[in-house]
Amino acid sequence: MAILENRLKGILPPLTTPFDERGEVDYVALADNVARYNDTGLAGYVALGSNSEVVHLTADERVRVIETIKLASERGAQPPGDAALGDQESGRVVVAGINEFSTRAAIEAVRRAAGAGADAVLVITPYFYKGAMTEDVFIRHFTAVADASPVPVLLYNVPQNTGVVIEPSTVATLSAHPNIRGIKDSAGNMGAISSIIRLARKDFAVLTGNGGILYPSLLMGAAGAVLAIACAAPGPCVDLFNAAASGDQAGARELQHRVSPVSQVVTTGFGVAGLKAAMTLAGFNGGLPRAPLAAVSDPERETIRTIMRASGLFPGLE
Amino acid sequence: MAILENRLKGILPPLTTPFDERGEVDYVALADNVARYNDTGLAGYVALGSNSEVVHLTADERVRVIETIKLASERGAQPPGDAALGDQESGRVVVAGINEFSTRAAIEAVRRAAGAGADAVLVITPYFYKGAMTEDVFIRHFTAVADASPVPVLLYNVPQNTGVVIEPSTVATLSAHPNIRGIKDSAGNMGAISSIIRLARKDFAVLTGNGGILYPSLLMGAAGAVLAIACAAPGPCVDLFNAAASGDQAGARELQHRVSPVSQVVTTGFGVAGLKAAMTLAGFNGGLPRAPLAAVSDPERETIRTIMRASGLFPGLE
Amino acid sequence: MAILENRLKGILPPLTTPFDERGEVDYVALADNVARYNDTGLAGYVALGSNSEVVHLTADERVRVIETIKLASERGAQPPGDAALGDQESGRVVVAGINEFSTRAAIEAVRRAAGAGADAVLVITPYFYKGAMTEDVFIRHFTAVADASPVPVLLYNVPQNTGVVIEPSTVATLSAHPNIRGIKDSAGNMGAISSIIRLARKDFAVLTGNGGILYPSLLMGAAGAVLAIACAAPGPCVDLFNAAASGDQAGARELQHRVSPVSQVVTTGFGVAGLKAAMTLAGFNGGLPRAPLAAVSDPERETIRTIMRASGLFPGLE
Amino acid sequence: MAILENRLKGILPPLTTPFDERGEVDYVALADNVARYNDTGLAGYVALGSNSEVVHLTADERVRVIETIKLASERGAQPPGDAALGDQESGRVVVAGINEFSTRAAIEAVRRAAGAGADAVLVITPYFYKGAMTEDVFIRHFTAVADASPVPVLLYNVPQNTGVVIEPSTVATLSAHPNIRGIKDSAGNMGAISSIIRLARKDFAVLTGNGGILYPSLLMGAAGAVLAIACAAPGPCVDLFNAAASGDQAGARELQHRVSPVSQVVTTGFGVAGLKAAMTLAGFNGGLPRAPLAAVSDPERETIRTIMRASGLFPGLE
Repeated sequence: MAILENRLKGILPPLTTPFDERGEVDYVALADNVARYNDTGLAGYVALGSNSEVVHLTADERVRVIETIKLASERGAQPPGDAALGDQESGRVVVAGINEFSTRAAIEAVRRAAGAGADAVLVITPYFYKGAMTEDVFIRHFTAVADASPVPVLLYNVPQNTGVVIEPSTVATLSAHPNIRGIKDSAGNMGAISSIIRLARKDFAVLTGNGGILYPSLLMGAAGAVLAIACAAPGPCVDLFNAAASGDQAGARELQHRVSPVSQVVTTGFGVAGLKAAMTLAGFNGGLPRAPLAAVSDPERETIRTIMRASGLFPGLE
Repeated sequence: MAILENRLKGILPPLTTPFDERGEVDYVALADNVARYNDTGLAGYVALGSNSEVVHLTADERVRVIETIKLASERGAQPPGDAALGDQESGRVVVAGINEFSTRAAIEAVRRAAGAGADAVLVITPYFYKGAMTEDVFIRHFTAVADASPVPVLLYNVPQNTGVVIEPSTVATLSAHPNIRGIKDSAGNMGAISSIIRLARKDFAVLTGNGGILYPSLLMGAAGAVLAIACAAPGPCVDLFNAAASGDQAGARELQHRVSPVSQVVTTGFGVAGLKAAMTLAGFNGGLPRAPLAAVSDPERETIRTIMRASGLFPGLE
Repeated sequence: MAILENRLKGILPPLTTPFDERGEVDYVALADNVARYNDTGLAGYVALGSNSEVVHLTADERVRVIETIKLASERGAQPPGDAALGDQESGRVVVAGINEFSTRAAIEAVRRAAGAGADAVLVITPYFYKGAMTEDVFIRHFTAVADASPVPVLLYNVPQNTGVVIEPSTVATLSAHPNIRGIKDSAGNMGAISSIIRLARKDFAVLTGNGGILYPSLLMGAAGAVLAIACAAPGPCVDLFNAAASGDQAGARELQHRVSPVSQVVTTGFGVAGLKAAMTLAGFNGGLPRAPLAAVSDPERETIRTIMRASGLFPGLE
Repeated sequence: MAILENRLKGILPPLTTPFDERGEVDYVALADNVARYNDTGLAGYVALGSNSEVVHLTADERVRVIETIKLASERGAQPPGDAALGDQESGRVVVAGINEFSTRAAIEAVRRAAGAGADAVLVITPYFYKGAMTEDVFIRHFTAVADASPVPVLLYNVPQNTGVVIEPSTVATLSAHPNIRGIKDSAGNMGAISSIIRLARKDFAVLTGNGGILYPSLLMGAAGAVLAIACAAPGPCVDLFNAAASGDQAGARELQHRVSPVSQVVTTGFGVAGLKAAMTLAGFNGGLPRAPLAAVSDPERETIRTIMRASGLFPGLE
């Protein structure tokens, strides 16, 4: 299992799902994105995270998205000549998001994801009965899911989508479970991330989900990050991670100040549609969102382009 | 269609789904509840509303829940001797909740619900990408669903679960669609309900989903209500509706003051688990919630019992 | 004291403070407004409420505002020929707002207000240390203020300005104090207002501060209302109160639907500056707000005018 | 003015105001605290910040608090033998909080504070008319105050008390004013602090007001911090600042993890009353809060003691 921890260090993009004009998943475009990401130093991929429009996908589509990403990631992971190694563990990790409300549905989805090739699962806090989402409920839910899961479990805290927060003390309690191995925390609350690092098991992998606090999070001990902006700018995110890891404070700070405004415009700014537009501008296959979400308008796209250009992170961008 | 409007007047309970100790749906207990409700003057039933734990049910279970309720409601609707009438339209209306995020999934679920016997559907606002849920998105989503739906559509605003609000002006715009026939508004915002009544099409059915403002809502022109508390106290809710309809202000106010504290304890107080406990105390089949929700604790049940007793609405309650 | 209760029934406008172009209080304009209000059937006046910009006034200005309003209200209260009566109690009640954070400052301000002629005081919940504003703190604060106050005390709940809510159960506890005689509740939460009416002492005066729920509040047992919109449209608010009091449901509902949109535009819409613009449009002395607040822009004023015209409540409005 | 910038680097405690049992300010105890702080490497003091209960103080008390702190800080600033220097600029900076709602009252308070010896003022965002607090209003207010102020102005963003946020872009605009020299940002939003650093004038002093993000803030370029916890643990806060300044990442991170839980318990945990209890436990003169705030209970004090002990930052604590 130590191998997984090593693979949960670094930058993982939460892959978007490109839809075509009929609203169908474009698996070829998705695989093509992964193929290109494979050359950028990313630690792995999150399939079916919030930015994937997982809630817009059927159960069958979700399985096929995982399979597509897994396959594309493995190909990329084996450069010519290495095929003989067969060392699957050296490849990029594929983490599959689980977005379910009942414990039994979450367990079923976890099994499907593992069957489709996921190395780990990222299980969202249930979020419909907000008033009932107590610490007890979270502990019961995640413990049952982790008990049943054939692969390691990461917790997923994303209050901007769920309206629900899992407290650092609850995360610390859950970190004692041998199959709960980390958290993606997208709340952007630096104090809470520090508290989780302080309170949880030493080898618990804390991944920030907020591009605006990547460097601070790493400095406080985060293992890595799952960042929307990494879908459009994988290289700079990896560079920032490496600068932080090597103690280059000035370089890391400078990169953080460049990454932050682009990160903001593709998250709180224009959301999934904005991220897809930024990916297309950066040369990846953004594709369309699925209804009721709509593509950004032309003026919105120009705003995104302007912010991307100003960052200096996209040298080829017109 | 005028017939539907007549049937959307009055009190509809949002039926809970009783689960057994293994976590399976107890369809017999559900049908038995409906059979007893049939004698209480309710206008119909909401299947798969928030209190049904719809998000904890599979697609197949959802269909069977609708079928079960529809069948039980029809039997009850035909008292001995009336069988010859065969006037299906005179029966209690069955409204099926639709809890989906993508427009295509909502349309598919609407068709399944209609196929299972639903007379109308209650379509929740999409709620995962909260930042993206603009007026445009709501109009696009509900219009597409209403265009495709074989049965009338009601909008469903329930910010305490979704973290998203649909504005009165947006509701007014949507009320112009011939297949969008009303709204269940559970926000408990009396000003907003009045605004919807003022702004929407004259025959648009506004149903309040908040037991604490039933009488005020009716006085301002609401057609009726979908109330959790009606699952435990159908008679008093119907009495309150009738008092308001007949202009008995003192009686209606008195009943409202009795209904309010019980309504509160089974909603914001203890949620679905509290409602199920109250139903059991009142002699109905509450059953268990499905994990991660848990049954109320013994002290919580006693708090509920105390409040129910103090209301004077449950004469047989020990 | 029964006399006060009788005087706390009906509609009271929370008087705005007109400022001139140098930012000074225009006491003459204020007195002139009161003189005109005196003919409209209002039950009295609230001086130094939220809409008065009380937080923008010095202690000395606050005293002089109360004195001005008191004097103007008494003159108006004595129609020609009645001077001989000398029945001060039959006049319009003047309630003075107290906006302080420490208990000792509130007590001092209450004494100054009583000395300036206030018949009662409206004491806001302290609101700076939001996290510390527990039920205990509220009970301690209001009890100490009421113990020391030479005039009756009303509680003031206005979360849109304070970010703090006083719960109905706390209000009920405080209603047992012989010198705490009512509440102005501006939260606009109909369920909470009903709960206060249900839980508090029978003769506790509940005044809604939200024009959008005036009729529902009165029907549930509110004694009256303190409404910003009554500064611009005193007559229609009094008419609505009277329609409700006489059981004219259709008339009250119709008036409510006319009052609501105008009420909204001068509160959540454009705030104090909007209310002042509406007053000027309606022929009263709106004057300017004090910096940092600014007058509405010309397009904003036209929006207000359009909404006022559409309501049909301002027949002379061009 | 460059001298001021140098003095705005480092740690400044927001001094609490000790009250005696009659509720009077204990100026002797306050001066005694400052005398002891003078030996701990602090860069200066904030008088009349949120933790001072400034809103509980009269205008006269506010002046005397500033005078007391200024006098005590100057004495301490001149160690034996340095008296000949007469270099007032080398002493600790005294920043005075301004907590007013109208622009004119803020200007008047700024002048009083400067007259009482304040080297700079910390001007809170107006916060009563929350809905009206637009970017325009903030720019108008702070510009007018800065134009009139005889001393440099710092902006003060503290949404947990005010319910109002000033956006990084607005701060950036205001940073162009020659007399607006920095901000204390207590929101605890690391992304926003980074944005301010990125967008504002290069020599604009960003001071974080959140102890849980001290090290991350410094790494991103903050000049220093105004921290409640520094009232109880000045030494460790200064050590953390120095570790960060000298590039000792491991040491700074370790100290941050020790400071965070204590910081939390005296802010979001038990507020001003908790901070005063912690100060007393640490050997300073905490004193009592002023009503309606009350001292912490005995069990609460033990909770605070336990957390302080566990931090290892208070070696003498029993």
